[in-house]
Amino acid sequence: MALKFELIKVLGKARRGRIYLPHGIVETPTFMPVGTNANVKLMTPKELEEVGAQIILGNAFHLYLKPGMEVLKFHGGINNFIGWHKPVLTDSGGFQVFSLREGRKVTDEGVLIKSPLDGSKHMITPELSMEIQNAINSDIVMAFDYCAEPGIEYDKAVRALELTTKWAERSLKRIRELSDQAIFGIVQGAFFHDLRERSAREITSMEFDGFAIGGLSVGEEYDITLKMTEFTVPFLPENKPRYFMGAGSPKLIVDLVYNGVDIFDSVLPTRVARHGQALTWIGKLNIRAAKFKFDKSPIEETCTCYTCKNFSRSYIRHLFDRREVLGQILLTIHNLHFMMDLSKKIRDSIEEGTFEKLRGEVLKHYD
Amino acid sequence: MALKFELIKVLGKARRGRIYLPHGIVETPTFMPVGTNANVKLMTPKELEEVGAQIILGNAFHLYLKPGMEVLKFHGGINNFIGWHKPVLTDSGGFQVFSLREGRKVTDEGVLIKSPLDGSKHMITPELSMEIQNAINSDIVMAFDYCAEPGIEYDKAVRALELTTKWAERSLKRIRELSDQAIFGIVQGAFFHDLRERSAREITSMEFDGFAIGGLSVGEEYDITLKMTEFTVPFLPENKPRYFMGAGSPKLIVDLVYNGVDIFDSVLPTRVARHGQALTWIGKLNIRAAKFKFDKSPIEETCTCYTCKNFSRSYIRHLFDRREVLGQILLTIHNLHFMMDLSKKIRDSIEEGTFEKLRGEVLKHYD
Repeated sequence: MALKFELIKVLGKARRGRIYLPHGIVETPTFMPVGTNANVKLMTPKELEEVGAQIILGNAFHLYLKPGMEVLKFHGGINNFIGWHKPVLTDSGGFQVFSLREGRKVTDEGVLIKSPLDGSKHMITPELSMEIQNAINSDIVMAFDYCAEPGIEYDKAVRALELTTKWAERSLKRIRELSDQAIFGIVQGAFFHDLRERSAREITSMEFDGFAIGGLSVGEEYDITLKMTEFTVPFLPENKPRYFMGAGSPKLIVDLVYNGVDIFDSVLPTRVARHGQALTWIGKLNIRAAKFKFDKSPIEETCTCYTCKNFSRSYIRHLFDRREVLGQILLTIHNLHFMMDLSKKIRDSIEEGTFEKLRGEVLKHYD
Repeated sequence: MALKFELIKVLGKARRGRIYLPHGIVETPTFMPVGTNANVKLMTPKELEEVGAQIILGNAFHLYLKPGMEVLKFHGGINNFIGWHKPVLTDSGGFQVFSLREGRKVTDEGVLIKSPLDGSKHMITPELSMEIQNAINSDIVMAFDYCAEPGIEYDKAVRALELTTKWAERSLKRIRELSDQAIFGIVQGAFFHDLRERSAREITSMEFDGFAIGGLSVGEEYDITLKMTEFTVPFLPENKPRYFMGAGSPKLIVDLVYNGVDIFDSVLPTRVARHGQALTWIGKLNIRAAKFKFDKSPIEETCTCYTCKNFSRSYIRHLFDRREVLGQILLTIHNLHFMMDLSKKIRDSIEEGTFEKLRGEVLKHYD
C-alpha cells in the first residue's frame, strides 16, 4: 500500500491525522499549495519548505500539455523535475472538464477538451488521466471525474454522477495496472442531496485510498457549500483521508475541519497575494493602502515568516506601488506561511481540545 | 572618513583591493547588482547574500520619485527600508539626464527631468541629488554629473564636461554639509581624448573618496569604450577606488580590470536572465532552446548556485515555456552568482598572478 492513514485524535467531527506517503509524512488537517504548471507561482522549493508546506498539488491536464508525459517520464516523475522532494497530489483533469467548458465535448469514453495554450483538442479518458498521473508519479492520484457546474439541471447532474462513477471504476482499474500509487475517489452529485448520497455510496464502495468531495466551491453560495459538505461527509469512511477540493479561505477551512475534512487546496492564498492582499489572524489586509506608506510594522507582528521578520508594510507597499514582482513574492511567502500556520494551529487545537475556540476566532475575522 | 581603500596587490595595471564602508567590507574587483527601485528585480536580500553580492546599487532619481525622501528618511535610510544590511552605492541621477532625454532641460542650475512614472517635471540640482542620497544614507554617494549621449558634438561635450565639473564642486560642498558619506566624482568628456583628460584633471583635483568613469558603455562601439577607459584611467589616483559605470558583460569586465578598474555595475546580468539567457564559463546559453527539453544537466555543471544545485535545464526551459516567473527568478540567481563568481575568480587570479590566463578564457567565450 502506497498510503497509510492514522487517526490520532477525533474531537467532535474534527480529525487530527497523519498520512504516510512515498515522499514523506503529511500531518492533517493541512492546506496544500497549488502548483498547476509544475511550480507554485513565484516560489522556490526552498521557500515552500520554509513556509512549512508538506504536500503540493499538481494538475494532470496542464502537465500533460506542458511539459508533456515524455519529459515527466524522462525525469522519473515530477519530484526530480521540479526539485520538490516531498509529497505531491495530482488532480486528474476533472476540474478542467468544469473550467474549460468552451468547445468541450463529454462522451462515455471521456472528455474532449480544448487546450488553453493553443486551442488544440485533447481527448482525456480516465485511462489517459491515470497514465499521465503515473508519469508524474504523484503520491496521491485522483480518479478522473466529471465536475458539474453550479445551477446544473437534475438530469444532467445524474449523467455527470453516473459518468463519475464509471470513470472512477476505470481509473482504479487502470492505475492498479500501472502502479501501486495511492488513489482517491471523488464524490460528485452537484447540489442535490439524493445525488450526493448516491455518488458517495457508489464511490466509497470501491477500493480507494481516500475520498474527495468534488463539485463544490465552484461559485455557489457559502451556505450551500457547507450544507452539502455536512451532508456528504457522514457517507465517507472514518479510516480514510477526506479531501475537499478547492478550499482556500480561512473561514471555509475551519468549517470544513469542523465537519471532518482532512485536506484542502486552493489557488486563493497565492492568487490574492499577487494582487496585494495579505491574510492575517485579524483578517485580510490590502498592502496597497496609502495608510501603510509610513508603517514600519510587518504585515503581522506575531508572524514568523521570512517576509514579516525582515520587511515592513511600508516597503511591501512600495514594491506593489512600483509593480516590482518582489512584492508579490514576499506576500506569497507570507500567505502560504499563514495557511500552513493555520493548518498547524488547527492540528494543535484538535489535540488540545480547543479547536472550537480557534474556529470562533477565525470566523470572527473572516466572516 | 566613511571610506578606506586598501590596495592589496597590483598585477600589471590590475588591482586587488578592499574598500571599508559603514555597512561592511567590499573586496575588489567586484560587480555590483543594480536595484533601481529599492530592490534587485526578483531577488530577496537573502538570495542576494547567497549569490555573494557585497554591495548593490540604488538610484537617487528613481528613489526620489518613489518611495520619496520622506519615506526613506522615515526608515533612516535604504538599508532598513529594503532589508539589505550590506553596503549600497547610489547613482546621482546623472544617468537619467542621459536616459530620460525627452522633455529634458539642462541649465547651469541643474536638470529638469520628466518622470517616467507620471510625466511630472522635476528639477534635479547637485544639491537636491546630495539631499536625496543623504536621505538614502548610501555608503557611497555619486556626484551629480552630465552623462552625454554618444555622437555628441565637441561643443556640447565641452559644455557637459564643464557642467559636470561645476556640479561636482557643488555636490562635494553640499554632501559635506550634510554628512560624512563617502562620495565619488565622475569623469566625463564624451569620446574626445582632450576632454577626457581635462575632465579627469578637474575632477581628481577635488577631495573625492573615489572616482568613476562615466559616459561610456552608452551605445558606442566596444573598442571606443575600451580605448577611452585605457586613456582615462592613468589620470586617476592610485590610492582611490575606480568605478566604471555600466559594465555587465564578462568581456568588458575583464578588460576593465586589466586596465585598472575596481568596481562596475550593470542591469545586464539580471535583465538577460529575465529573457532566458544564462551566463556561463563557456559563454551565453539560451535556456528557451528546444534542445534543452530533455537535458537533465544544470545550466552549468561546475556552478554551485542554488539554481544549478537543484534544477535542470529541462525544468527551467519548461518554466520559460509556460511563462512562469520562477524561471526568471532561477536564472537571475544563476546570473548574479556567475557575476560574483567571476569577480571572485578575478580577485583570486590577481593575487595568484594568473589574471591574464583567466582573462584569456573569458575573452575566448565572450567575444
